[in-house]
Amino acid sequence: MEHISTSRCYAGEQQVWRHESSSTGTPMTFAIYIPDHEDGTRLPVIWWLSGLTCTHENAMIKCEYKRACAEHGIIFVCPDTSPRGEGVANHDDYDFGQGAGFYVNATQEPWSPHFQMRSYVEDELPALVAANFPVDMDRQGISGHSMGGHGALTVSLRNPGRFRSTSAFAPIVSPLNCPWGDKALSGYLGDNRAAWREYDSVALIEDGARIENVLVDQGTADEWLEGQLKTHLFENAVRDAGMQAEIRMQEGYDHSYFFVSTFISDHVAWHAAKLKD
Amino acid sequence: MEHISTSRCYAGEQQVWRHESSSTGTPMTFAIYIPDHEDGTRLPVIWWLSGLTCTHENAMIKCEYKRACAEHGIIFVCPDTSPRGEGVANHDDYDFGQGAGFYVNATQEPWSPHFQMRSYVEDELPALVAANFPVDMDRQGISGHSMGGHGALTVSLRNPGRFRSTSAFAPIVSPLNCPWGDKALSGYLGDNRAAWREYDSVALIEDGARIENVLVDQGTADEWLEGQLKTHLFENAVRDAGMQAEIRMQEGYDHSYFFVSTFISDHVAWHAAKLKD
Repeated sequence: MEHISTSRCYAGEQQVWRHESSSTGTPMTFAIYIPDHEDGTRLPVIWWLSGLTCTHENAMIKCEYKRACAEHGIIFVCPDTSPRGEGVANHDDYDFGQGAGFYVNATQEPWSPHFQMRSYVEDELPALVAANFPVDMDRQGISGHSMGGHGALTVSLRNPGRFRSTSAFAPIVSPLNCPWGDKALSGYLGDNRAAWREYDSVALIEDGARIENVLVDQGTADEWLEGQLKTHLFENAVRDAGMQAEIRMQEGYDHSYFFVSTFISDHVAWHAAKLKD
Repeated sequence: MEHISTSRCYAGEQQVWRHESSSTGTPMTFAIYIPDHEDGTRLPVIWWLSGLTCTHENAMIKCEYKRACAEHGIIFVCPDTSPRGEGVANHDDYDFGQGAGFYVNATQEPWSPHFQMRSYVEDELPALVAANFPVDMDRQGISGHSMGGHGALTVSLRNPGRFRSTSAFAPIVSPLNCPWGDKALSGYLGDNRAAWREYDSVALIEDGARIENVLVDQGTADEWLEGQLKTHLFENAVRDAGMQAEIRMQEGYDHSYFFVSTFISDHVAWHAAKLKD
């Protein structure tokens, strides 16, 4: 791992690291916030998955998680949203290609060699972080925003029991049922929509996946709510499955980090309560 | 004024506006955070001056002032740091020209036609904001970071009594005594260093200016502390003048917004105590 930067922030350190990823075959950069702690102790961790166009940096500078993470003693990890670089396939649109990995393992050319973001966030990065930072892997939470909310819900639903707590801000709840999903998943996975179901929180629940401790915040002024995010599909799936999830419609908030930053302290505190020893 | 954006954030609105500035002869953009309030009430205001390379946007997304401003009911205004655009003089370096206005009224070509940032932040913008937003101009505070800390201290020292509270993060305390100041002020104001004194917080105090309620935070790990910022010069000037100022050296913090965001809530609360009715 290559150390990029360390800055003291609140009672802890915001660090950035880069490493050669075996999943993507590219260098990958991630941010990790580490609260002050006694030597030898291991801290709970929240994995944060970011949205379309983001790198590791957006949440790091905009999300305002550090105060709450310092207070509750929680490590917070922000990976990139896709492989990047000259040898990596790309697309001119903001919602496909680099910056838009959708946390899937691509099966279609030209994406499949590098766009293996499911393996990266689900397996490789957790192992790397566990080996190099003082995280307690028995106390993990996951969260994310928009495409990263989709990522958080689907990673958790595919791995019941791994995360004690799962939250999302304005998640894309069903790529099978929105234009962003149609475009990205047909590109990365091909036209066999049955193969998309493991990347769709609604379909995963319909197919029997269950997780506990789920919190979703969604702004009512979000420009993507009706056309892309469709929170009600998740609400319906949860209800039909007899699953519990707290879904909060936040009046007047839009899709931006101005919304996320407003409620991230709530989320961190909520995760913290589940992540206690 | 042209409305650019409004996003709900905490219990208030983050807005961005653009207007034709008579000071700079260019369009100028500023951010303004307005907490929820009852119709007809006027709120205290903190003016925030940003550092080198910044636009109105950097503090808006990185500074983490909104939570505290919502809590204390304070409006927070972030102007740009210089005129910009194709017809405006510029320089390749980050510390001179666009993004580096130093809050001076330039007297030297080619800067003088547009680089009138003293007039802009001292006169034009306050009048514009007072006329269009619910600010109580009897309850003003001012703050800023780095070049903007220099701006906050010097604007306040030139206008004793206008601001009830003046704070700064990692300010350039004496442009007369650092390379950034040498370069910028010789370029904007020419070689007559006597003319620089009204843009130097140490010189202003030496020349008799006095203000009350001053708070400065400076990180000890700041890479610019010794070569550019030289907090001790301000400390000495304040002591020699018999003036009061709280100067806090914050152990381990660097020059970034990771430092500013850590202590901005402290500053807003400190301003709020001075800005009560």
